[in-house]
Amino acid sequence: MHIAIVGAGLVGAGWTIVFARAGKTVKLYDASVEIRASVLDDIRGRLHDLKNFELVSDVDAILGRIEVCNTLAAVVDGAAYVQESVPERLELKKEISTQLSELLGEGTIVGSSTSGIPASAFTEALPNREKFVVAHPVNPPYLVPVVEVGPAPWTAQDTVGKAMSIMTAAGQSPILVRREIEGFILNRLQGVLLREAWALFEKGYASAEDIDKTVREGLGLRWSFMGPFETIDLNAPAGVREYAEVLGPLYHSIDASRSDPQPWSEALIGKVEAERREEVTTEDLAGRRNWRDRRLMALAAHKAKQQDK
Amino acid sequence: MHIAIVGAGLVGAGWTIVFARAGKTVKLYDASVEIRASVLDDIRGRLHDLKNFELVSDVDAILGRIEVCNTLAAVVDGAAYVQESVPERLELKKEISTQLSELLGEGTIVGSSTSGIPASAFTEALPNREKFVVAHPVNPPYLVPVVEVGPAPWTAQDTVGKAMSIMTAAGQSPILVRREIEGFILNRLQGVLLREAWALFEKGYASAEDIDKTVREGLGLRWSFMGPFETIDLNAPAGVREYAEVLGPLYHSIDASRSDPQPWSEALIGKVEAERREEVTTEDLAGRRNWRDRRLMALAAHKAKQQDK
Repeated sequence: MHIAIVGAGLVGAGWTIVFARAGKTVKLYDASVEIRASVLDDIRGRLHDLKNFELVSDVDAILGRIEVCNTLAAVVDGAAYVQESVPERLELKKEISTQLSELLGEGTIVGSSTSGIPASAFTEALPNREKFVVAHPVNPPYLVPVVEVGPAPWTAQDTVGKAMSIMTAAGQSPILVRREIEGFILNRLQGVLLREAWALFEKGYASAEDIDKTVREGLGLRWSFMGPFETIDLNAPAGVREYAEVLGPLYHSIDASRSDPQPWSEALIGKVEAERREEVTTEDLAGRRNWRDRRLMALAAHKAKQQDK
Repeated sequence: MHIAIVGAGLVGAGWTIVFARAGKTVKLYDASVEIRASVLDDIRGRLHDLKNFELVSDVDAILGRIEVCNTLAAVVDGAAYVQESVPERLELKKEISTQLSELLGEGTIVGSSTSGIPASAFTEALPNREKFVVAHPVNPPYLVPVVEVGPAPWTAQDTVGKAMSIMTAAGQSPILVRREIEGFILNRLQGVLLREAWALFEKGYASAEDIDKTVREGLGLRWSFMGPFETIDLNAPAGVREYAEVLGPLYHSIDASRSDPQPWSEALIGKVEAERREEVTTEDLAGRRNWRDRRLMALAAHKAKQQDK
């Protein structure tokens, strides 16, 4: 049984690489004829980049497991799993989910790549809604392994378990978002750190570049191989309890000083943008994104060489 | 002129390695006779670990630049810079700063390793208080380069500039905390992310391990070589402004849902601790800390090999 990729833009093409790299047969479909015509070339280019970092070995073998389909029915027929990655608009998620619902075979389940829309918002009316779940990747998923698996209240336990297993088998790192919540886990954690970063910048405590440096030359090093709980657990001789007892009051005081969250204002965005454009001009943004992707590949290769997780 | 290290515990010994590795002559002093007797062995052991990861080449040459002094006067005499790393208690910071104040030569300035006490709290009464500044490292400073340089209102611009230059020359990444604020920059950013992590765990949205995984297999990868602003700047075609306009409302909604910060409660700490002890037993904590240090060394070696910052 194959993996079906529905929606073959940036995210869907990334998922195709994840599953084909893991040895699965992958069929993909996009409503756009242009995307169907160009997606394999896009994937081939990305696979060659990965090969340069020794993250894949046989590009042709991986490409040989990928097939482009011209209809939604053809891509879904006989699939074990459908990864849906249409654009992030509620009406599109509802429309594709309704179409998928009518095509799903007995054992097929659907994971949606949505980064912010809970599964309940686009699956409630479906007759087989227990087969739908959120499976939110980080882009590109073949370099950043976390996947947020988030059930709606009516998603079957069996669907959740299968989605987690399929992700693990594909080399990803699924986490379970037990109940629906805005922003899931990853973007909530990112959001609160961003909020503090914007506020510190706004009040003039540090430049945007110095805030970035504090993360990339400080906090972010440990967090690239340990999470926040393990970090503090190892930062006191007796573990997390000692850490929390000693430093909890300081952190609570910091939190209390931010109890009135302000939106990111137009003026504030303009100031951060001005500082960022001094670091990287608008013309150089695309090149800098290529740099980021190479660094992510180098980091993935580095992490793969470490003997334990 | 040499660098003076005052307080040679975990932090002071780490600073000694930073400066001696950078080619500086380092004199160090600790009030404890036992620490003065053992610190060089401790440093030698750490340098051999670093050599195994090709992070230093000539251990003996580095050790040859380090001298242990038996008095505070001897270590300070003729120093270009004093890095003070006595334990994190206000009365101790006041006491050592008063003693240093009386011994400082014309051109000597003092940076304190304090992680949370602002310079104004322990330097106000000193006659040469303009020569004192906070220089807060992350442990161990020879693997995590960020240093938070934080002046009191009366710290001279010249002192700030010299401290930044000395850190840069030693291979560190100093950032300027322009005004005093509780937790400086790094621990504020860590604190808000921890707060959200505790809250998500408390309400049952995810396990502590899954929250950790979301960071170490997701968010933390980019943050180990880009800060939060650069990350979002590269995450929308037109840069940070487009990102903020599209996603600002979602993040503000997330923030508003956390406008009533709760302290880390005893019951909550107990639950996280229980989950952590299933991952790593109390007996294995020390071994896991060694793992963390090896991973930090491997990551530092990896980052050093990347061609640009």
